[in-house]
Amino acid sequence: MLGLGNVGAGCLRLLADNRAAIEARLGATVVVKRVLVRDLDRAREIDVEPGLLTRDAAELLGDPEIDVIVELIGGIEPARTYILDALAAGKQVVTANKAVLAERGAEIFAAAERGGLGVFFEGSVAGGIPLLRALREGLASDRIDGVCGILNGTANFILDAMSRRGLAYAEALRMAQEAGYAEADPTLDVGGGDAAHKLTLLAQVAFGRRVDPAAILTEGIEAITALDIRTADDLGYVIKSLAIADRGDDGGPPRLRVHPTLVPKGHVLAGVNGSYNACQVRSQGLGRSLYYGRGAGMMPTGVAVLSDIIEVARLLLARQPGDSLPAGARVQARASAPAPLGDLEHENYICVDAPNRSGVLGRVATCLGAHGVSIKYMHQDEPQGSDLVPLIMLTEPAREADMVAALADLRAFSDLPNPPRRLRILAEPEDDG
Amino acid sequence: MLGLGNVGAGCLRLLADNRAAIEARLGATVVVKRVLVRDLDRAREIDVEPGLLTRDAAELLGDPEIDVIVELIGGIEPARTYILDALAAGKQVVTANKAVLAERGAEIFAAAERGGLGVFFEGSVAGGIPLLRALREGLASDRIDGVCGILNGTANFILDAMSRRGLAYAEALRMAQEAGYAEADPTLDVGGGDAAHKLTLLAQVAFGRRVDPAAILTEGIEAITALDIRTADDLGYVIKSLAIADRGDDGGPPRLRVHPTLVPKGHVLAGVNGSYNACQVRSQGLGRSLYYGRGAGMMPTGVAVLSDIIEVARLLLARQPGDSLPAGARVQARASAPAPLGDLEHENYICVDAPNRSGVLGRVATCLGAHGVSIKYMHQDEPQGSDLVPLIMLTEPAREADMVAALADLRAFSDLPNPPRRLRILAEPEDDG
Repeated sequence: MLGLGNVGAGCLRLLADNRAAIEARLGATVVVKRVLVRDLDRAREIDVEPGLLTRDAAELLGDPEIDVIVELIGGIEPARTYILDALAAGKQVVTANKAVLAERGAEIFAAAERGGLGVFFEGSVAGGIPLLRALREGLASDRIDGVCGILNGTANFILDAMSRRGLAYAEALRMAQEAGYAEADPTLDVGGGDAAHKLTLLAQVAFGRRVDPAAILTEGIEAITALDIRTADDLGYVIKSLAIADRGDDGGPPRLRVHPTLVPKGHVLAGVNGSYNACQVRSQGLGRSLYYGRGAGMMPTGVAVLSDIIEVARLLLARQPGDSLPAGARVQARASAPAPLGDLEHENYICVDAPNRSGVLGRVATCLGAHGVSIKYMHQDEPQGSDLVPLIMLTEPAREADMVAALADLRAFSDLPNPPRRLRILAEPEDDG
Repeated sequence: MLGLGNVGAGCLRLLADNRAAIEARLGATVVVKRVLVRDLDRAREIDVEPGLLTRDAAELLGDPEIDVIVELIGGIEPARTYILDALAAGKQVVTANKAVLAERGAEIFAAAERGGLGVFFEGSVAGGIPLLRALREGLASDRIDGVCGILNGTANFILDAMSRRGLAYAEALRMAQEAGYAEADPTLDVGGGDAAHKLTLLAQVAFGRRVDPAAILTEGIEAITALDIRTADDLGYVIKSLAIADRGDDGGPPRLRVHPTLVPKGHVLAGVNGSYNACQVRSQGLGRSLYYGRGAGMMPTGVAVLSDIIEVARLLLARQPGDSLPAGARVQARASAPAPLGDLEHENYICVDAPNRSGVLGRVATCLGAHGVSIKYMHQDEPQGSDLVPLIMLTEPAREADMVAALADLRAFSDLPNPPRRLRILAEPEDDG
C-alpha cells in the first residue's frame, strides 16, 4: 500500500474487521506486506504494526512477493511514477486516484495492457457507490447510452447549503470547509475539474473511450448567486452540478460536459442532498437505473478499494502463474476527442444584471432573437441593493452554439456591469414507469 | 435455455445485439445450443433458428457439450426438477426464478454445493438493478446491516395509482391489469408473497442466512383504502409496500418483514414511482446507499440473466476442467429461522371505522393504553357514506408485540363492523450527509 491517509486507514480497518468473511470468500489470505508513508512516527487513525511501515518505495516496488500495489497517495506525482514502476515490475494496481488516471491514463493503461496487467479504480469515482462495477459487470451485456450524475460531494454540499439555508456562495463554501468537506483550495471541487476527472473515467468504462479531461466542457459553481437558487426554486427547479456523458452517435465520440444545471424538483437527482453522490444510467436493456450513496470518505472509499483488492486477488488465484489477466478485467479504451456540443439543445436560465433604465430588456431580447434564441418567460426581480435590476429569462430549447454566440454578444454590451449568468435546464424528463 | 417467454427473448435479443462486445470481453464465444419450449410453432417476440427449439428437456440436460442451463420457466415445477437434474449432471445454473429458489432453495443450493457448482440468480430480484451483484462484489469487504426496498413493481404501481389519481384499490388493480403490470391472479404480487421470496434471496446474499419465506411476516396491500392514502398524504407520508431485513444481533438470525409502510415524503424511497423498484442498503463501510431501476420486464431481466451468463462463462474459462467454481461464486448460507419481531418499535397509523355514537373513541384509546400504546395524534374523519366515522390515530413508538395484542383486542369489539386497519410508519429517518 502506497500512502496511509484516510482511505488507506479505512481499507485496513475494514480488512481487520471483516477478514474472516473476506478470506472465506476468497479461499486465500490477504497479507498487507508493506505500507509506504512519509512519516514513520505520525499518529494514525488505526494501529499498524510499525514494522510494516517504510519510507522507501523500492521496498514495495522491488519486492517480488508483492502481487498488488494499492496506490492511495493521490495527485499526479509521485503517484504516476510509482504506478508505472509497479506495472513495469509486473504488479497489478489498485488505485482511488482519479486525477492521475484521468490526466495520465494514456500511458498508464497502455503500460498495463502491454503487461497483461489490471488497473482497478472503483474507489476513484463515487467511493460509496459500486458504480464502475455495476457498469462493468451488471450491465456487461447492455449498451450504455448515457450517464448523468452528481459526482462531487463538495459542490453538492455547497449548493445544498445555499438552497436550504439561503446562504451566499462564499458563506456556504466556508461552511463546507469548516465541516471538512472542502479543502483550503477548493478549486478542483467547485470549478468542476474533479467531476471532469471522474467523468473521464466513467466514459472510459461505459463507452470504451478515453477522453482528455482538459477537452471536457467544464463550468464551476462559483458564480451562482442566492438569487439564482431562489429563482430556480420559485420556477420549480433545484440547481445541481451535473456531470453528463452521452454515447456518440454511430460509434462516434461521446459528448461530455460538467456544469451546474436546473433540475426539475420531481427528478430523482433533485433529491440528492448534502455530500451524497448519485448517478443515473440510461441503457438499452435496463432503461433508466440509478445508483446513490456517499461520495467519498474513509470508509466508503475503503470499501471500494478493498472490493478491487478482492477482485484482483480472485483473478490472480484463478489464473496460471505468469498468465495475463483476462481481457474483461483490463480496461481497454480508444483515445477519443469528445464530440462537439454545438448541436445540443437545452432550455436555459439567463440572469442579466441590468441598469435600471428603459430599453435594456429590449436590446437583450433582440440580441437573443438574432441568434435564434426565443424567450419563453421573463421576470424582472427586485433591484439588488445598487441600481441594478436582475432580468431573469427562461429560453425555449436553443442550440448550444447559438447560446454561446448570443452570450458572447451580451458580454460585449457596454452598459452591463456584470457578465450575464446562464444555466442550462436538464433536458431529459424523468419517466415514471 | 429452458423456456422462451419474455425474459428468454430479451436475453437472446441482447446477446444478438451486443455479441461482439460481450465476446471481446470474454475472449470466447457464447453459443445458445438448445432452447426448451412447450410449443414449437408459436409466434415469438424474436426470430430463433427453428432447429434450436425442442420440447424434450433431456436434449439439454443430457447434452455433455452444454455447460450452463438457463432456467426461465418460473414457478416451482418442473423448474425445480430441471434445476436439480442440471446440477446432478454437473452443469452450472442461471435462473431468474425467485419462487423456486426461495421455496426450494435448501435442496437446490445443497446440490450445487455438493457438486462445486454455481447457481446464479441476479434476474430473480429487481431485474433492472444489478443489486445482488452490488451486494456480493461491490460490498464484498463491507458488513451489510440492513436492506429496505420496494421489490414488487405491481404493488408499487397500484399504490402509486391510488395515490396520484385518488383511485380505490380495486380500480387501481384493474388499471395495473390492463397495463399488463398485474396478472389475472394478482395474489403473489399484492399479498406480498413475491416480495417475501425476493427478501429471502436478498437476506441470503446480504447475511449468508437462508430463511423459509413462509416464516416471514408478510402483509399485503389489499385492505388499503383511498382514505388511508389521502390521510397519509395529509400527514406527510406516502404508503409504500416495503420489504425489510436487518442483520441479527451478535450473529443471530435476521429480522425480515414485508408490509405496507408510511414513508415520510422527504425519504428517497417515497419518490420511487410506478413500476420501479429500489433498495436502500445500510452497511458498516458505505453507510447508506441506494439502487434504483425497473423492477422487471423482458429487457431489464434479460440484462440481469445475461450478466450471470457472462460471469459464469468467465469463471468456467478461468478454472481448470473439472475444478469446482471458486467459493465466492457459490452461495453458501446457513438455514435460519427469522428472528421474532415482538421487540421492534414503530410509530403506527390506525384507522377504526366507528359507529357514529359517543364512547367508542374512549374505549379504543383505553384498549391501546392498556397495552402500553400511546396515541400522539387523533383525527375524526368525515362519515363514509354509511353511519361509520373513521377514527384515525397515530401512535407513539410502540413494541410490535404490544400492537399485535392491542389490535387483537380491538378486533373483538362487538360494535366495530370492520377490523381496524393498522400500518407501520418507517422507523428510520433519512440522514442527508
